[in-house]
Amino acid sequence: MMHLPADAPDTPFLAVDIDLMSRNLERTATSAAERGIALRPHAKTHKVIEIGRRQTELGAVGLTVATVGEAEVFAAAGFTDLFLAYPVWATPSRSARLRAVAERTTLTLGVDSIDGVTELASGLAESGVRLMIEVDSGHHRSGVQPGDAGAIATAAVRAGFDVAGVFTFPGHGYALEGRAKAAREEAEAIAGAAASIERLGIDVPVRSGGSTPTMADADPSVLTEMRPGVYVFNDAQQVELGSCSFADVALTARATVVSRSGQNAIIDAGSKVLGADQPRWVTGGGRLPDYPDARIVALSEHHATVAFPPGEAPPVRGTVLRVAPNHVCNAVNLANELVIVSNETVIDSWIVAARGRNN
Amino acid sequence: MMHLPADAPDTPFLAVDIDLMSRNLERTATSAAERGIALRPHAKTHKVIEIGRRQTELGAVGLTVATVGEAEVFAAAGFTDLFLAYPVWATPSRSARLRAVAERTTLTLGVDSIDGVTELASGLAESGVRLMIEVDSGHHRSGVQPGDAGAIATAAVRAGFDVAGVFTFPGHGYALEGRAKAAREEAEAIAGAAASIERLGIDVPVRSGGSTPTMADADPSVLTEMRPGVYVFNDAQQVELGSCSFADVALTARATVVSRSGQNAIIDAGSKVLGADQPRWVTGGGRLPDYPDARIVALSEHHATVAFPPGEAPPVRGTVLRVAPNHVCNAVNLANELVIVSNETVIDSWIVAARGRNN
Repeated sequence: MMHLPADAPDTPFLAVDIDLMSRNLERTATSAAERGIALRPHAKTHKVIEIGRRQTELGAVGLTVATVGEAEVFAAAGFTDLFLAYPVWATPSRSARLRAVAERTTLTLGVDSIDGVTELASGLAESGVRLMIEVDSGHHRSGVQPGDAGAIATAAVRAGFDVAGVFTFPGHGYALEGRAKAAREEAEAIAGAAASIERLGIDVPVRSGGSTPTMADADPSVLTEMRPGVYVFNDAQQVELGSCSFADVALTARATVVSRSGQNAIIDAGSKVLGADQPRWVTGGGRLPDYPDARIVALSEHHATVAFPPGEAPPVRGTVLRVAPNHVCNAVNLANELVIVSNETVIDSWIVAARGRNN
Repeated sequence: MMHLPADAPDTPFLAVDIDLMSRNLERTATSAAERGIALRPHAKTHKVIEIGRRQTELGAVGLTVATVGEAEVFAAAGFTDLFLAYPVWATPSRSARLRAVAERTTLTLGVDSIDGVTELASGLAESGVRLMIEVDSGHHRSGVQPGDAGAIATAAVRAGFDVAGVFTFPGHGYALEGRAKAAREEAEAIAGAAASIERLGIDVPVRSGGSTPTMADADPSVLTEMRPGVYVFNDAQQVELGSCSFADVALTARATVVSRSGQNAIIDAGSKVLGADQPRWVTGGGRLPDYPDARIVALSEHHATVAFPPGEAPPVRGTVLRVAPNHVCNAVNLANELVIVSNETVIDSWIVAARGRNN
């Protein structure tokens, strides 16, 4: 199979099947609406203005972002409700940037410590930013234990902030057979944190959870909002986790076979195109949707070594293949633009506007 | 220890200690010259015009690049001798771009198959490009077996190309205690390939090898040229391989502690700043030169979880730390610019000019 769309650039590049992407966006918007859970998609996955607009048109209440730089890009593009879901450390320089964003848009920041509240208060008092308390639901990264959320909320209120609610990222749902359990723990942690805050007489209007692997199991009796990112494109990890199938993968790298050796084909998309993510539970460095039995057994910066099973001849040199990255967020962050394809013809290209805006 | 240089941007960012970098450049230039081996540094590591110029000033015979896009960037900046060390698949579009590069600079391309020669001949006949035959020295990626180099060289000569020589990348030297063995196998493969070509009456002036881990053991009785890349900055992998020490690491991410939990500190540099490279033999997702007993036990896109040993209190929130990425080539490819530091004061910033030029 030759997967070089008409009018495509030289390989390697990232191609988005716009029809599959639209279906992914609509399906998740509908599923959230049916359960009465607000959708606040995480824009760190796509970093693209055009995609953020489609998410908004389909009913998203706002966008989630990961960095001040991403907030700046989406605020400048006219998005009016942004949640920076990160325990922001508000130095004077960062506070000045956040104040400028808050002048254009409703801005909500994450916080997970009383120190963090103090730092935020020193630079963002009376800026209009709201705070969300981050809770650890089992991923053990940032976030406080649910019972400690009340103390932080109290500090925030005393410092003059509006507490919008609580949030968690159930990242431990990124594990084989871990999705449903992580969704249960997400609901427990959010419920516990909300109770710890309400006990002190502070309202908790927003109760926000992750994530593409857990969204099917998100508990509408607890969560008021969810923040999946990857669902717009899907990727090899999601296929191997069971949260989607290859037919749902809307973004693929297009790569050319440049060398062959025995049952191996060497292609020109490596870690600088696909990203190097490779958690222990994945079966290789990405997947080939059109060759489900092939595996990427080695990944260099500009080469992937694809092993084909006995009896299946690797494609000849010059063949262009589709490759689903393991983790699409990191793949997109490597590209300056996404090549937009419909029926295997290039129809547009979209700038990855917030690419590299890591600080 | 607070590692936010004067006049620095908000964390996270990549900082280059210019004095350490200069020492790395000079040391390798001297070592190559003393052994009579020409140096053709791989520019895929830094992608920076200013650094390529310093390498040239210190005697490099030219630069190595990994993609047509990198060749375009360095040719446009006035570099006059480029080797694209890759088995280029010369479609009409790619050939047109390569012809344009070859009009500005001496351009040499890799090839590892007779099919590849045929494809190159169809678009690049009489373009002045020269070919180097790629040999597999044990990394088992691209490259032919040494005894097969003669047949490809013959095809190249018949197609009208000037054969410049043979090259290999001993990437299997990226393994604990694998460096010296890989360097021996590099020399054997290059010698065997050169013999296979000379037997047919074709000269082999250039015999080119890798690589930062193997360069100390490069055999001057066989190699005429070496192509290390990482040596300019070094990284956590090189420290753990034993090819340098922390005192030689010239590029570090600067990251802020944003959260803490028990013996863990959470910092704001994740895989979108450090890269996600994590071969099985490394001890974590990067290293902290100032905390040699700490380990990055988890890496998300915008968080690294740093575990400190019992009895060593993690730094307080707001502290700025230095982090050596595992694989500096992929870290640099994530950044739009490098912050240049001398004595912990920012003195300049350099554009990563060939960033994202993957095709």
